[in-house]
Amino acid sequence: MTAHREQAKHRLYLEHALGQGQAIDLSRDHAHYLFNVLRLNTGQRVALFNGTQGEWQAEIVATGKRGGTLRCLTQSAPQRMPPDLWLVFAPIKKTRTDFIVEKAAELGAARILPVQTDFTNSERIRQDRLQAHALEAAEQCGGTYVPQVAQLQPLSRLLDGWDTSRALIFADEGLSGAPAPETPLPPAPAAILIGPEGGFSPAERARLRAMDHVTPVPLGPRILRADTAAVAALTLWQATRGDWS
Amino acid sequence: MTAHREQAKHRLYLEHALGQGQAIDLSRDHAHYLFNVLRLNTGQRVALFNGTQGEWQAEIVATGKRGGTLRCLTQSAPQRMPPDLWLVFAPIKKTRTDFIVEKAAELGAARILPVQTDFTNSERIRQDRLQAHALEAAEQCGGTYVPQVAQLQPLSRLLDGWDTSRALIFADEGLSGAPAPETPLPPAPAAILIGPEGGFSPAERARLRAMDHVTPVPLGPRILRADTAAVAALTLWQATRGDWS
Repeated sequence: MTAHREQAKHRLYLEHALGQGQAIDLSRDHAHYLFNVLRLNTGQRVALFNGTQGEWQAEIVATGKRGGTLRCLTQSAPQRMPPDLWLVFAPIKKTRTDFIVEKAAELGAARILPVQTDFTNSERIRQDRLQAHALEAAEQCGGTYVPQVAQLQPLSRLLDGWDTSRALIFADEGLSGAPAPETPLPPAPAAILIGPEGGFSPAERARLRAMDHVTPVPLGPRILRADTAAVAALTLWQATRGDWS
Repeated sequence: MTAHREQAKHRLYLEHALGQGQAIDLSRDHAHYLFNVLRLNTGQRVALFNGTQGEWQAEIVATGKRGGTLRCLTQSAPQRMPPDLWLVFAPIKKTRTDFIVEKAAELGAARILPVQTDFTNSERIRQDRLQAHALEAAEQCGGTYVPQVAQLQPLSRLLDGWDTSRALIFADEGLSGAPAPETPLPPAPAAILIGPEGGFSPAERARLRAMDHVTPVPLGPRILRADTAAVAALTLWQATRGDWS
């Protein structure tokens, strides 16, 4: 669903200062995208954001094969930061991992942290590719913020350095014992932890159970795939504790 | 996330009566799947469901290249019907359409209805392939019910025959005017309607707005892709009105 609130039809994330009258020299990649892929021309508009200065309408003032220039006109949306919610997840198959990152960006996660768990099959991820997915999702969803995708790290190391003021919300059927549907989800700062296919190991379960501020999020009577669980948990948190209300 | 509540590791949907001692002759496809793909053998177990009689543990009693026989032992889960919630959606790109159907089955939609809207690009769908996705999702998610995927039909025709006792919940930013986050979602029978990329046409909006029992579901400040909106809306309904609580 594309909404119609943008003045410019296309949105572009740029690592460049934005402001009234600001001129922006385009990289070769951006020039290629705007002028060859989208076939935009001088005088046409693009919406720009850089993750910190809101969204700006910009006009194409010069085009070229290897570059071009934009000029910022007016700010069309203020900078909007997502709530302080992290998504911590164990990478699964490539398509579903891409999907999780895309959806986390759309649903307003502030940070995305892939972790290796005892039952994680993926030994490595392409962090740069996942970051590009998050960026593209931000361009698509009209957001002004791009969540950072961290490098893959062991879950145990992440938990070693866990700031206990950040609530940990997990979705893993085997971990919760009796689900507690009446427990409201904790407010920010919070993190949602999604286990891999196969769930957490007994050692991981024991460690998670022993932590303070650990809250299960019940996700119904059917077993959800990891990607579904991620989207569902992000939705419930945003609707009750996040910026949806 | 695979839970460990099944006794048999593999689950199979079959259009066959299930019951104590019931013998089941396998189709060639099922025999191939069980004996060649999964490499199961005589004496091993499979969990079976047919959409109406719960889940049964069955033992492999004969194997063959083009067939084989199972025998039902005990019922391992009662039949569980999902709440009376439909998902009505406009098909988008192939992968995302597949995804919507898979997620709707996992999240417990009772029926899945693809519709052509004024701004729908897809002129046709492969209903059989989508139905197979729903079935596979039910096998994976431990459910005992497989939602029926309807043939593609025009939204206007679906609305012509709409039973107004079924609440219509839509997710389309342009349609809602002022979102009403405080409005609780209506209970079953209900249907969630997800618009295509580009949203609904002015004529469709006018018609939907004029209908009784139409409720917007607000999905936050960012623009969600159609597949994300489907998962988010199904989650919110199931968590508040469905079988998650």
